[in-house]
Amino acid sequence: MSLHSEIFEQPAVLGGLLANQRETVEQIAKVTCSHDLRFVFLAARGTSDNAGRYANYLWGARNGLPVALAAPSLFTYYKQPPRLRDALVVGISQSGQSPDIVSVLAEGKRQGCLTLAITNEPDSPLAQTSDFILDLQAGEERAVAATKTYTSELMSIAMLSIALSGDTKSFAELERVPGWVEEMLKLDDSIARMAERYRYMDHCVVLGRGYNYATAFEWALKLKELTYVKAEPYSSADFKHGPIAMVEQGFPVMAVAPDGAVYESMMGMLRTLRNDKLTELVVISNSKEALLLAQSAMPLPQGIPEWLSPIAAIVAGQLFAHHLTAAKGYDTEHPRNIRKVTETH
Amino acid sequence: MSLHSEIFEQPAVLGGLLANQRETVEQIAKVTCSHDLRFVFLAARGTSDNAGRYANYLWGARNGLPVALAAPSLFTYYKQPPRLRDALVVGISQSGQSPDIVSVLAEGKRQGCLTLAITNEPDSPLAQTSDFILDLQAGEERAVAATKTYTSELMSIAMLSIALSGDTKSFAELERVPGWVEEMLKLDDSIARMAERYRYMDHCVVLGRGYNYATAFEWALKLKELTYVKAEPYSSADFKHGPIAMVEQGFPVMAVAPDGAVYESMMGMLRTLRNDKLTELVVISNSKEALLLAQSAMPLPQGIPEWLSPIAAIVAGQLFAHHLTAAKGYDTEHPRNIRKVTETH
Repeated sequence: MSLHSEIFEQPAVLGGLLANQRETVEQIAKVTCSHDLRFVFLAARGTSDNAGRYANYLWGARNGLPVALAAPSLFTYYKQPPRLRDALVVGISQSGQSPDIVSVLAEGKRQGCLTLAITNEPDSPLAQTSDFILDLQAGEERAVAATKTYTSELMSIAMLSIALSGDTKSFAELERVPGWVEEMLKLDDSIARMAERYRYMDHCVVLGRGYNYATAFEWALKLKELTYVKAEPYSSADFKHGPIAMVEQGFPVMAVAPDGAVYESMMGMLRTLRNDKLTELVVISNSKEALLLAQSAMPLPQGIPEWLSPIAAIVAGQLFAHHLTAAKGYDTEHPRNIRKVTETH
Repeated sequence: MSLHSEIFEQPAVLGGLLANQRETVEQIAKVTCSHDLRFVFLAARGTSDNAGRYANYLWGARNGLPVALAAPSLFTYYKQPPRLRDALVVGISQSGQSPDIVSVLAEGKRQGCLTLAITNEPDSPLAQTSDFILDLQAGEERAVAATKTYTSELMSIAMLSIALSGDTKSFAELERVPGWVEEMLKLDDSIARMAERYRYMDHCVVLGRGYNYATAFEWALKLKELTYVKAEPYSSADFKHGPIAMVEQGFPVMAVAPDGAVYESMMGMLRTLRNDKLTELVVISNSKEALLLAQSAMPLPQGIPEWLSPIAAIVAGQLFAHHLTAAKGYDTEHPRNIRKVTETH
């Protein structure tokens, strides 16, 4: 049962990353700041792409850096890559193997950009193509569904954000993250009981906004990979622009709605869904009001700042996906049709 | 029945746009080229966001411009917008009304960027916030589900790409687009018959890659808005990184696979899905091989270049969604839960 044990390794892995990689991150930030960067160009697939969504919000809001998510096929099939002048080119990949992600970094290097690999394999092709390596040091991840490498990617992104901003006292906030993740793991038994109710769910949407847009995507991906539920992620704003038409009584909606800047916007949508459309709500939040609105509530730690909440929130999503997989009688370790390392071009 | 008639207006609308807006586009390109731009920062929601995905590939491949899709909440709820130095800031919106998209353009202007609105309402708040207006001139769109404004947005993006590249002889290729769309409309009756088979489909995935990544998203959105089918769009590469786990015998897969640079990559996926996983395939393509693989085949015009194929391909998707809505007994003009103009913050 490596999936469940890897979920439980996360506090230790995150603590280790924080202790061992801070110097590397500060060095990357120092060189990066000496360049007059206009934007970040970021390439990733799957779970790592969801970590990229977190970088999009965090580096945008806290570091003023626009983040463009790469279309890798421009580099591989079309062979017409864009000009990357004054960009920091970042590749995120657990295995560092996928040829399309490597080719984006190689092109960045060819064009003279600074390149950074965030990976769990510091000897991988991706790492070898990069000026800087942020080594996740998460230990081997054996379960096909990524868990500890995802939260490590988020933590790396947060560490780099702090180093780039020079606001080093925020590292103290990061020190609290392993404890918050520990708190989430205590929900294991209650989430196992909660998951029973969704034994026959075959589709759902997953809503999140701002920093937790990433959480919505990653929770949905775990549900698809492990439970085969057709789970579609949205920001509450994009959901309103059309897809909300699908909703009918009992339609299951998962939502990540911690206290913070987008809380009221999320709550507006959740109240409409629950009160007017009679949907079923599964909610991750540290607001009593949001939790009370839900049929199934997963509490987040009190006092966790919104920008760090994705690292704790996804742990509830991982546990939920794990226990629902078991409730449905599927194999948590070997999902059908997929492998640990996926090579795409 | 404005939806069906608006689908049929598209050849005339596209022809008009081409005739009336070429000068505007060339003027925008002239001013834009005199700035030393590093990237495009693009804000849009819903259907217009799908047009933005086309711009991401087209302006990347043909104009060397990286495109960053904006996270509007950074401008509204977080009030921490990124630095947009040396960016062209573009807003795409049929109505030009949504406050979050307007706020991205307003911030771009405040930071001294060039700003461009692509809209069907040249007097809208979005247009009033922009240096340049590309007026879609599609006439009033009455159906809640956008059709003619989407293809007009794609056409505007293609016109601007040609003007920016200076390769004005490519305008001759654009002149052929209304005729290709005309050809697609001739499929109306056969698509009506084809749609019957999907009367009881309640979920599907929609695959596309490269230029037709946009088509996959827009086709899926029409299915969700009109037929309430849970349709999830993917690039074939992202689909391989996890979501393919959901697939079982008979799982319905819609695919857009015209001849071109990503054709072989798409076909690899479609062969696996059809031959190994026994999925159901609905395919839009001009390749005989791709069409023969499908249970339901919608032919694209022969000879249409891949970069223009999204403007024709989505017409088959629109007709399919329209007829499936009728087959399911739903209202094509007034989908539940949504309105024509959606205001998000």
